[in-house]
Amino acid sequence: QCSLDSVMDRKIKDVLNSLEYSPSPISKKLSCASVKSQGRLSSCPAGMAVTGCACGYGCGSWDVQLETTCHCQCSVVDWTTTHCCHLT
Amino acid sequence: QCSLDSVMDRKIKDVLNSLEYSPSPISKKLSCASVKSQGRLSSCPAGMAVTGCACGYGCGSWDVQLETTCHCQCSVVDWTTTHCCHLT
Amino acid sequence: QCSLDSVMDRKIKDVLNSLEYSPSPISKKLSCASVKSQGRLSSCPAGMAVTGCACGYGCGSWDVQLETTCHCQCSVVDWTTTHCCHLT
Repeated sequence: QCSLDSVMDRKIKDVLNSLEYSPSPISKKLSCASVKSQGRLSSCPAGMAVTGCACGYGCGSWDVQLETTCHCQCSVVDWTTTHCCHLT
Repeated sequence: QCSLDSVMDRKIKDVLNSLEYSPSPISKKLSCASVKSQGRLSSCPAGMAVTGCACGYGCGSWDVQLETTCHCQCSVVDWTTTHCCHLT
Repeated sequence: QCSLDSVMDRKIKDVLNSLEYSPSPISKKLSCASVKSQGRLSSCPAGMAVTGCACGYGCGSWDVQLETTCHCQCSVVDWTTTHCCHLT
């Protein structure tokens, strides 16, 4: 078919594609993963943000450094886990 | 009116609607909630991801299993809370 | 140039602009920050959600109140940190 209607249809979709328009950008999801390291520091992979930290020896005192690294503060800590999330 | 301009206007909007285009998909928000359970395991509702865990008896040692379940590791733990988030 | 093609091109982009269409609404990112306070309560800034909490004295027992405030539960706690995230 080559009606004006179908030509316009194709043309509109071409322009949207050229703008990298995606029909459903709404389907973003939160995805999370953990990284466990020995010692009192552990970091997220690039592009992920820390949402929480866990520490060995039952320790619940931690802080986040540079938005990507968990630091466990108790005097004795054998491992540190960074829980990391990003949008996919 | 039936100018070429108004016909094209309607046509373009029709195509966008057919693609389920939404003018402001940008208004996504992070929403979170907690689930508290007895014992050392607690899970998020379907569609939500764990961002952190809390444990009874002051315990800060936990891990996340299958992206949806908190597991508290200390030898004595009476409750486990999963903190869960998703996009709304 | 004033071909039918270039006229349609301009027209389509005009309509998209009028709908406040943004070519890359997909570039949303998860951003997080911590707020540390003295005592057993600490709150996120407006618009951010708690993803996890940390407590002084190694305490890992906490709950989230009203989606924005961390409450550390151990009998002795000198500081509370709220870890907060939002989409940017």
